[in-house]
Amino acid sequence: MPDRLLRTLRVRNKHRPGVLGLLTSRIGEAGANLGDIRTIWVGPEHIVRDLDLLVADEAMLRRVVELVRRLEVIELLEVIDDVHDLHIDGKLEVRATHPVQSVADLRRVYTPGVAEVVRTIAGQPEESYVFTVRGKSVAIVTNGTRVLGLGNVGPVAALPVMEGKAALLQQFVGISAWPIVLNLREPQAIVDAVSAIAEGFAAIQLEDIESPVCFEVEQRLIETLDMPVLHDDQHGTAVVALAAASNAATRAGRRIEEMPIGVLGLGAAGNAIARMMQRAVASPVFGYDPNPEARARLSAAGGVVLESQRELMERCDLLVAVTGRRDLIEASSVRKGMCILALTNPHPEINPERALEAGAAFAADGRSVNNLLGFPGLLRGAIDTRARQISDEMYLAAARCIAKHAGPYELVPNPLRRDVHRAVARVVAQAAHESHVARREIPSDYMMPAKEPFQSLGGALGGRS
Amino acid sequence: MPDRLLRTLRVRNKHRPGVLGLLTSRIGEAGANLGDIRTIWVGPEHIVRDLDLLVADEAMLRRVVELVRRLEVIELLEVIDDVHDLHIDGKLEVRATHPVQSVADLRRVYTPGVAEVVRTIAGQPEESYVFTVRGKSVAIVTNGTRVLGLGNVGPVAALPVMEGKAALLQQFVGISAWPIVLNLREPQAIVDAVSAIAEGFAAIQLEDIESPVCFEVEQRLIETLDMPVLHDDQHGTAVVALAAASNAATRAGRRIEEMPIGVLGLGAAGNAIARMMQRAVASPVFGYDPNPEARARLSAAGGVVLESQRELMERCDLLVAVTGRRDLIEASSVRKGMCILALTNPHPEINPERALEAGAAFAADGRSVNNLLGFPGLLRGAIDTRARQISDEMYLAAARCIAKHAGPYELVPNPLRRDVHRAVARVVAQAAHESHVARREIPSDYMMPAKEPFQSLGGALGGRS
Repeated sequence: MPDRLLRTLRVRNKHRPGVLGLLTSRIGEAGANLGDIRTIWVGPEHIVRDLDLLVADEAMLRRVVELVRRLEVIELLEVIDDVHDLHIDGKLEVRATHPVQSVADLRRVYTPGVAEVVRTIAGQPEESYVFTVRGKSVAIVTNGTRVLGLGNVGPVAALPVMEGKAALLQQFVGISAWPIVLNLREPQAIVDAVSAIAEGFAAIQLEDIESPVCFEVEQRLIETLDMPVLHDDQHGTAVVALAAASNAATRAGRRIEEMPIGVLGLGAAGNAIARMMQRAVASPVFGYDPNPEARARLSAAGGVVLESQRELMERCDLLVAVTGRRDLIEASSVRKGMCILALTNPHPEINPERALEAGAAFAADGRSVNNLLGFPGLLRGAIDTRARQISDEMYLAAARCIAKHAGPYELVPNPLRRDVHRAVARVVAQAAHESHVARREIPSDYMMPAKEPFQSLGGALGGRS
Repeated sequence: MPDRLLRTLRVRNKHRPGVLGLLTSRIGEAGANLGDIRTIWVGPEHIVRDLDLLVADEAMLRRVVELVRRLEVIELLEVIDDVHDLHIDGKLEVRATHPVQSVADLRRVYTPGVAEVVRTIAGQPEESYVFTVRGKSVAIVTNGTRVLGLGNVGPVAALPVMEGKAALLQQFVGISAWPIVLNLREPQAIVDAVSAIAEGFAAIQLEDIESPVCFEVEQRLIETLDMPVLHDDQHGTAVVALAAASNAATRAGRRIEEMPIGVLGLGAAGNAIARMMQRAVASPVFGYDPNPEARARLSAAGGVVLESQRELMERCDLLVAVTGRRDLIEASSVRKGMCILALTNPHPEINPERALEAGAAFAADGRSVNNLLGFPGLLRGAIDTRARQISDEMYLAAARCIAKHAGPYELVPNPLRRDVHRAVARVVAQAAHESHVARREIPSDYMMPAKEPFQSLGGALGGRS
């Protein structure tokens, strides 16, 4: 991932028509993307505004600043680093759900009252899901070896990302998640550490662990722990990719079950996508990756490994590319009528416009497929039913639900829609029961639909977030 | 610890004078303690009230219920188990400190904004204290092998106690603490697990780990980690015991530095108390415990091990007893003019009234010495200065501060007083600097005094909580 930067320009404009247009045009000319524009102060002569900016790198930021400085009707007051400001003290807090202000409070929250609850749980450990925070809490575990597109940044530098995921879990589905960053690289050591702390949580979410360590860690934890273990980079991503691919096929006037499917790039995400697709369409999926280990994994999972990217392009009608490599797919290799999802962010394997020009029936890039749609509902549905694990049926139910909620101009719905996350949780809970991994009935009032005004905007908010 | 129970009786009384008096007298006769009384509903003929009750065991509860049922003017509507009710879903929640409702929010909290913060921390790991939740967060670690007086209940049953401590940390000093319960017993395995997760936290609080494992774990973690490690059962308790002992000496008209000091019971708490006392008075402390390992630990720490409890009673003027054994000290062994703190809860080694009758100049039991006073301010002061460890000077400063804040009828102040916790944090931060373990300046507005109306009640709220 290149070093994309978010900055906010605070400017003082002459208060007259056309000035904002001039400013935004200049910013566009420099190649920067504009986000929100907020009015900070309005005077008789001047108006102060904040403009959110997304630039590719420091050089582009300097160009923007230079162009803006040349405009006589505009004074650049400040370039604000909003992101670092917002991160001061982190993005999470732990709060007590009951105030402790009187002796009566203390007796209930702490001693002697708490001893009764300890005895209850010592007698029936399952009651820990009812009488402690465990029942609604998830450990978000990483060792920081494969963070975003940044690679191995180590455990502590991965904290802001894990906090971000935890913040989303709280905001989207009311889960209390806590980041656990491990300074370990060896798979069994990671498994041991996670197993040692697991009893304090209802589920384990694995994040940003390097491949192939992540496969081994996930597999052993699923075998060891009697609780949901979700490696989001694999299965969260695969669920959303499946939803998007299914809608892409429909958009091209076909059904995904009838299309030969190919996956280009068989890392953690590609491998999981291939396996998820196979389950969904109940027939083998083609795959290619230059790495022999990655190819072996697909073979072992029943997929058909091809010998080259060229062969893959020739044999599949629906292609999902997750290689991490920009412009890897040449337009000349695109066959007429193909559906292409080139998911590497921010620069896809092939630009959707080029793919369409080259004859693709449908094409999209990673901006249309936000993987934040998967994990919140998956985890909420899984922990609410106290699932022993996340079954294939639960993943597939989530994918169908996400696909169904997409608006007419989307491949998947906007990830900010609470109603979608709640719907995913509901179908996942249902699937947990149907696949016999649930240990608890679904509460009758389970996950009431959201009533925020926001919701009605669903489709209109678009998928390009 | 016996199975003390908190219950709430909901009763419907005839609305006329004297009925409440009758009811409370009957409850007192049954041996139960009354807590708060709340009026729930007032009608022309009747009044419904909730009475909080603390009973020694189920048998006493049955006696209370029987006595109340015999009263004709009172109808017992319900015996409410408030404590379990309050514990449903636990006592903590994780909240996002910034809402995630727009694309702009998502860009800052998650991608692409978060990548900038990741890069900052990858370049300078120390910045994790500024730009993540780490800077204000503590792991409360246990394996549940020595919980309250309940013994080895295992990790998951210890969760309610750890949650309670975390709730107090948030309420008293604004720390975000998360419980980590380990299913490990072997010291090095515990050290490895805590070391593996430590980078996500500013400090480690060890709780309720069996002796002697706790000593080894604490010592190795202090050596391994470059952050504060606090074993509360040792040093939190010792700080408060020292504060109480110092005030007890004053109450008896003496100075603690001039008194021969004895510690009876050299487990985790007793051992730490003996060592803390030695540092405070700068001379050896006497100790006795039937366990040879415990005696060896005191010897190694420079204390004077005596051969019997009788010898200890003969040679010390100030005695601190932390044996866990009720009525261990006979009145006949009390020498005239002694100060005695018999701290085993809820039944002390000797009843203070009996000790005074036997000639003690001052006597108190564990109800006067609440160990919740230590850890919140210690941790807050330590993490705010990013102390490399908690130095002796920090512990002693905390003890002096706690002693100073006691009201005229208290040995230590009420633990619900926020102003005391803040004062402790301030002196601990100061001591961190003076003892050269701080890695950060004290902020100029550090821990403003609390302004709650509550505070002025300080002394009046009493020490018997």
